[in-house]
Amino acid sequence: MIGRLNHVAIVVPDLDQATALYRDTLGASVSAPLDLPAHGVTTVFVELPNTKIELLYPLGDDSPIAKFLAGNPSGGIHHICYEVPDILAARDKLKQ
Amino acid sequence: MIGRLNHVAIVVPDLDQATALYRDTLGASVSAPLDLPAHGVTTVFVELPNTKIELLYPLGDDSPIAKFLAGNPSGGIHHICYEVPDILAARDKLKQ
Repeated sequence: MIGRLNHVAIVVPDLDQATALYRDTLGASVSAPLDLPAHGVTTVFVELPNTKIELLYPLGDDSPIAKFLAGNPSGGIHHICYEVPDILAARDKLKQ
Repeated sequence: MIGRLNHVAIVVPDLDQATALYRDTLGASVSAPLDLPAHGVTTVFVELPNTKIELLYPLGDDSPIAKFLAGNPSGGIHHICYEVPDILAARDKLKQ
């Protein structure tokens, strides 16, 4: 049932600096920053040959990742995202 | 320069239980547990279509992940591993 690793999300304290590291130092293709106000984050996607890295930076006063960054001032890996063919079926199976 | 995401390593408090979750509940192919005394860990690899998850459990008294597990009793994502064509060149570039 479990499918591809869609992305690894990394909270970073400086989005420009983290983007430059992946783009300029490591030579990766990176997206433009994208504000997602409903999620309280600004994201940059780093394209790897087999998956993506999602750089996350807090957006707004109620960002759900602000507390994570307060506890981890250098940032850190926040979550990983697995693909599944049916998310409700996967939820039910994990609840059993 | 940066290549594939080789694996995501997750420290777990119960290797049998974590292995069963990925194998039986989520239907993934998993390896047999492998003791790596030089690294102080027992590992199980979970095969995903595009990358691997490495489950890590402390082995021996000097395991480098024992402290991580003490601070995160439920376990957590420990590290991610990127492939590069030349690891010394990558190190030097990151040091600049």
